[in-house]
Amino acid sequence: MGMEHTLKQGGFTLPGEAGYEELTLQMARKWGADVIRDSDGTQLSDEIIHAGYDIYSTICLIRSDNAWAKQNMDKLQQNFLMSEPVYAKGDTVTIEPLKGYFTQQFAVNWKDEPKEFWQVFDRTAGTEVPAGNWDYDEQAGTVTVRGCIPYHKYTVNFLAIRLWEEISMYNHITNDWGDKEHLMAVEPRHPETQAQILKWLEQWCKDHPMTNVVRFTSMFYNFTWIWTDHEKRRDDFTDWGSYDFTVNPIALREFEKAKGYKMTSEDFINRDLHNATHNAPSRKYRDWMDFVNQFVVEFGKKCVDIVHRYGKKAYVFYDDSWVGVEPYGERFKEFGFDGLIKCVFNGFEARLCAGVKDVQVHELRLHPYLFPTGLGGAPTFMEGGNPTLDAKRYWGNVRRAILRAPIDRIGLGGYLSLTQKFPDFQDYIAQVADEFRLLKSFHQGGKPYCLPVKAAVLTSWGKLRSWSCSGHYHEHPELDLINLIEALSGLPIDVEFVSLDEVREKGVPAGVDVLLNAGRLNTAWSGGEAWKDAKLLEEINRFVANGGGFIGVNEPAAQDFSTQFIQVADVLGVDIDLGTRICHGRYQYEVEKSHYITADTVAADSILGKDGVYLLNDQVQVLLEKEGAPALTANQFGRGRGVYMAGFRYSLESARLLMRAICWAAGKEDAADTFVCDNLYTECAYYPDTKNLVIINNAEEPQDCAVKTPSGDVVKAQLPAFEIKIVSLA
Amino acid sequence: MGMEHTLKQGGFTLPGEAGYEELTLQMARKWGADVIRDSDGTQLSDEIIHAGYDIYSTICLIRSDNAWAKQNMDKLQQNFLMSEPVYAKGDTVTIEPLKGYFTQQFAVNWKDEPKEFWQVFDRTAGTEVPAGNWDYDEQAGTVTVRGCIPYHKYTVNFLAIRLWEEISMYNHITNDWGDKEHLMAVEPRHPETQAQILKWLEQWCKDHPMTNVVRFTSMFYNFTWIWTDHEKRRDDFTDWGSYDFTVNPIALREFEKAKGYKMTSEDFINRDLHNATHNAPSRKYRDWMDFVNQFVVEFGKKCVDIVHRYGKKAYVFYDDSWVGVEPYGERFKEFGFDGLIKCVFNGFEARLCAGVKDVQVHELRLHPYLFPTGLGGAPTFMEGGNPTLDAKRYWGNVRRAILRAPIDRIGLGGYLSLTQKFPDFQDYIAQVADEFRLLKSFHQGGKPYCLPVKAAVLTSWGKLRSWSCSGHYHEHPELDLINLIEALSGLPIDVEFVSLDEVREKGVPAGVDVLLNAGRLNTAWSGGEAWKDAKLLEEINRFVANGGGFIGVNEPAAQDFSTQFIQVADVLGVDIDLGTRICHGRYQYEVEKSHYITADTVAADSILGKDGVYLLNDQVQVLLEKEGAPALTANQFGRGRGVYMAGFRYSLESARLLMRAICWAAGKEDAADTFVCDNLYTECAYYPDTKNLVIINNAEEPQDCAVKTPSGDVVKAQLPAFEIKIVSLA
Repeated sequence: MGMEHTLKQGGFTLPGEAGYEELTLQMARKWGADVIRDSDGTQLSDEIIHAGYDIYSTICLIRSDNAWAKQNMDKLQQNFLMSEPVYAKGDTVTIEPLKGYFTQQFAVNWKDEPKEFWQVFDRTAGTEVPAGNWDYDEQAGTVTVRGCIPYHKYTVNFLAIRLWEEISMYNHITNDWGDKEHLMAVEPRHPETQAQILKWLEQWCKDHPMTNVVRFTSMFYNFTWIWTDHEKRRDDFTDWGSYDFTVNPIALREFEKAKGYKMTSEDFINRDLHNATHNAPSRKYRDWMDFVNQFVVEFGKKCVDIVHRYGKKAYVFYDDSWVGVEPYGERFKEFGFDGLIKCVFNGFEARLCAGVKDVQVHELRLHPYLFPTGLGGAPTFMEGGNPTLDAKRYWGNVRRAILRAPIDRIGLGGYLSLTQKFPDFQDYIAQVADEFRLLKSFHQGGKPYCLPVKAAVLTSWGKLRSWSCSGHYHEHPELDLINLIEALSGLPIDVEFVSLDEVREKGVPAGVDVLLNAGRLNTAWSGGEAWKDAKLLEEINRFVANGGGFIGVNEPAAQDFSTQFIQVADVLGVDIDLGTRICHGRYQYEVEKSHYITADTVAADSILGKDGVYLLNDQVQVLLEKEGAPALTANQFGRGRGVYMAGFRYSLESARLLMRAICWAAGKEDAADTFVCDNLYTECAYYPDTKNLVIINNAEEPQDCAVKTPSGDVVKAQLPAFEIKIVSLA
Repeated sequence: MGMEHTLKQGGFTLPGEAGYEELTLQMARKWGADVIRDSDGTQLSDEIIHAGYDIYSTICLIRSDNAWAKQNMDKLQQNFLMSEPVYAKGDTVTIEPLKGYFTQQFAVNWKDEPKEFWQVFDRTAGTEVPAGNWDYDEQAGTVTVRGCIPYHKYTVNFLAIRLWEEISMYNHITNDWGDKEHLMAVEPRHPETQAQILKWLEQWCKDHPMTNVVRFTSMFYNFTWIWTDHEKRRDDFTDWGSYDFTVNPIALREFEKAKGYKMTSEDFINRDLHNATHNAPSRKYRDWMDFVNQFVVEFGKKCVDIVHRYGKKAYVFYDDSWVGVEPYGERFKEFGFDGLIKCVFNGFEARLCAGVKDVQVHELRLHPYLFPTGLGGAPTFMEGGNPTLDAKRYWGNVRRAILRAPIDRIGLGGYLSLTQKFPDFQDYIAQVADEFRLLKSFHQGGKPYCLPVKAAVLTSWGKLRSWSCSGHYHEHPELDLINLIEALSGLPIDVEFVSLDEVREKGVPAGVDVLLNAGRLNTAWSGGEAWKDAKLLEEINRFVANGGGFIGVNEPAAQDFSTQFIQVADVLGVDIDLGTRICHGRYQYEVEKSHYITADTVAADSILGKDGVYLLNDQVQVLLEKEGAPALTANQFGRGRGVYMAGFRYSLESARLLMRAICWAAGKEDAADTFVCDNLYTECAYYPDTKNLVIINNAEEPQDCAVKTPSGDVVKAQLPAFEIKIVSLA
């Protein structure tokens, strides 16, 4: 890019706003921007475009040419839906498949061979109704099932055509856009659609000679977002990572050719659970994901190539419509993207962005967005809002992750004009931009020092869902794993993500000291039925017995199988009674007052209790009790160690406790002796190549802290709220 | 019996105490006793025996002749145990079967063909190790398993001989009896044991000519009580109703002959769950119970016949060692018992006793027992104790049940001399005895009026476990069903108990208005895997759709099967997310301020919340919210109704709420218009034949109340704490 980068300038993407040309250029100077972008719904004026900044424009290929989409309604995207259940009163049941769904979003696809793709189920008996026992009637809009058993309930899985692209739908309805055109998502599996998309993109590149960076938002398939027509339950199902919207007759038929077997509607409906990223995936679903990923990469690469041909860079947005892109997949490098952009509220999202290989630029879109309201409709850039405090908190979340992993760019989104009434916000962003550029410069000197322990997060997904539980922290703060990875995102500990399949097949990866597994029964985070495989348990038991560590949270490795519920119960020294062991005696215990793990804090507000947790032997140390049951325990298993936490919520306290638990489980109690702040409200990172020690205050109050260095020296620091301090140890 | 019964005398069994002859006779007069009994560890003196009262003596056949037991150690009772798991390090594992168990209670039975009866399991893989891969060594006291997989864990199921009868063991250890002889339980399956028992009993009858009533305590098999040698976990497994101690080689071989298939050790060990009464029983286990019951009745009848031959009556105690007796079983009448005695803390236990058919006398042993300490070691008849208040509370629990169902006798147990320092207790018992005799006289005139609704408690056990969840209330107050039946025990509602099998096979019994199902997943109270049977659901859905009611509590009808967790979710209008539906939207709702069910009280302290409960449609009425989820809901299903409670704890408030919920679910909102107190701390019963209205104050404070009669009259009453008032409507 054209402009010279200094510590006061560069690495910053500013949202320009037509009509506010002076403000745009003023803020660009104040914040050290090198790039000006448009936003969803904004356009840049010629004055801004020609002001000497790099220009960055957003496009969304699947909803970009609505006129074409309208002329090709047979080429819209599709997905499977399950009808509402209908109880049989006699031996025939009539079902309206679409009843209860949002009819502006969905229409029934009556055209593509219902008998090939649809299925009818008796959901009382849990059995499929033979295809010969049901018929569909497009005119009536119904399916009739014969040979029913009275008082059983029946559902139809059917293909639905999507009439309204979900981001367009959401913005339209939220902002009350009235008559404004509904955008539609076209299905790129059709050759005609592909031709149209490539043609449109080529023309767009020609029409935007000043654009240096094209941001794809994102590729072809949105996250799943199924709406109902129930006022009191608008959302039927929403998941940032599931592949429901990649389904259509072409894909289903090609899958069968490619993989040698057929995906059924029920493979997607999955007893109404769909294939939520949160749940342990089936082998068939993983095959489908692979099949879709291959297509998205192949066709996506053609789009990226066009952008490159016009001398522009291609970035991809890692939020909307990224399904099939899989930045942590093996094929991602084949796209040829130059950059990846992630909008971030939290530290783990910064690590999610930073951890993607094979792109040169990792860019964060910071919150708050320049909108009148923020999360849950709370005021931001309007009366009653405090965007500066919001920004400090979000930056506080994100900064501790940026200390650990390099990020190349940051930026904002939204309406710049809204900042005019908040000059302190404008000032604070200037400070954030400077902090960011400084940290970036430190990373350029090399990796920061990590404690000599390596942790691996063990899930069904492994690397493919690194640094993520599908979605933002505030959407599912009840997930233990999202809290754990938020804590990990800023800890001075090497972290990798490993799948149950990998461990079963190849053992625990070399170099890993501690495994973490956290979640509820049958989720992808806990692991589900994979834990019935003794080979997996052999590997884990061997790893711990020989000195490894295992930290289990909530219902880790859970499955109602054999003599245990937690399948690694002996490693942890605890198991969970779901109500069928009330006649069994439980070990009495006393809470250990003093332990390495809780030496700094027991994080009592952040470690939850769980009913039914019980000890397996009298050597297990109970470090915290809640609700009358052990909530935090430490156990020896062979030469290794197990730590159990009944529940984990992120806080500065629990992040510290987690760090110590990892060191203890690894059997490396002295690992945290150096380059760790003695005050848990502060954290530090040491960059050995440039000998810079960065200390941050994560708290909203001033803090004092001390950091021991390997030479035995102690660096002391006093930091105002949210402050950063750089100490040179040269 | 000899003495004349008046309202001031009769129906009362007093524990006599040698050395306190004067006190014994004084209290016998004061309390209107007609019978004097001995107690465990007490003997009656000749003076008492010849005082003109009926005499009642306790015997326990299986531990009555310890000298014989010592000479016949090969005929002691046995049971299966599972060894502690041992992890394989190489391909061989050596296991000490008995390690960790209480060796004063158990010895390994090495003699009876271990290869026939024992099993070895790989509990990591959940598979049995072939018998050819293990050997036992009596000398070494070990089992060696070959062909092991390292890092798998192995256990041995083995036959253990019981060296110490558990009641003897418990009393011995609790009371520090030192050298006192350990009593042993002999196994009556051996013909020699049977001969010895019959001989002993015959001799005993001859030796006790003054005894009018022989109380069997109880028959042959104690409830399961497995102890460990771990100081911090004395109890391994304790259940009042499970059949572990009925196992031995003779029985196992005879079972195979009788039923045509073999019970394995694992059928009893059951993944270390044993066959707790609380858990849904397998078909095989039910067969075993039937097989044992047949034997206990057959041999028990021979014992009863001897007692009858000597002109005495035979009563059976419905607490210790009643396994195999099954007072609610089809064969119970064949014993020929004259009476049944139940010790009671609570109302449901009074109903448990009252509900047994085919005995003439139903007798309650009231608490507190005349011991220095009571529940959990709290002081009773000693300094710091308040036995009168204890007695009022227990009588308060029990009396409301006695209003509903006739009891023939009451009595006390323990050391009468302990009452000397508590004259107010002596006075209060006189009052209780009078109240009891009055209520008994009312029942003699006919059944009390019930509201025109009939409820059926639906469990795996049905009638066989009527009015019981295996054990006392205070042992498992966390069980929803024990709380529900305690509430039901005093409500003016007809109650029956029905099994899932019966409903599946024959439908909901005629006359039943409302089904209740309450408990956690896989328990016998919720029902377990039976809910995967669509035939059962057909019957229940039909019943409700045609106007029936269904009240589900906690995890009713639960099974992770098909599209629902609560298999009757549509009936209730709610289901439960265990963590795999976090991406699904939930219906928003407002709590109904006014509803028939909550018209008297919402019982907010007694209805618990449960995480994950969600509504299935927007017509469900939420009557109480807890922990952010619906805790009490009301739903229409066809012409019937479903009520869901996330958890139920007994209180006077929740008993009232339950009564109204039953009326509402039955669609009979006017059922509670008459003969129901307007003040929920009071209850009443109307005896139509004698036109007596009995009003009781269940509270520890004075209460006013009013009762509407069918004629429209209103009876008003003021009652001091715990008082009873009789109003004649003649």
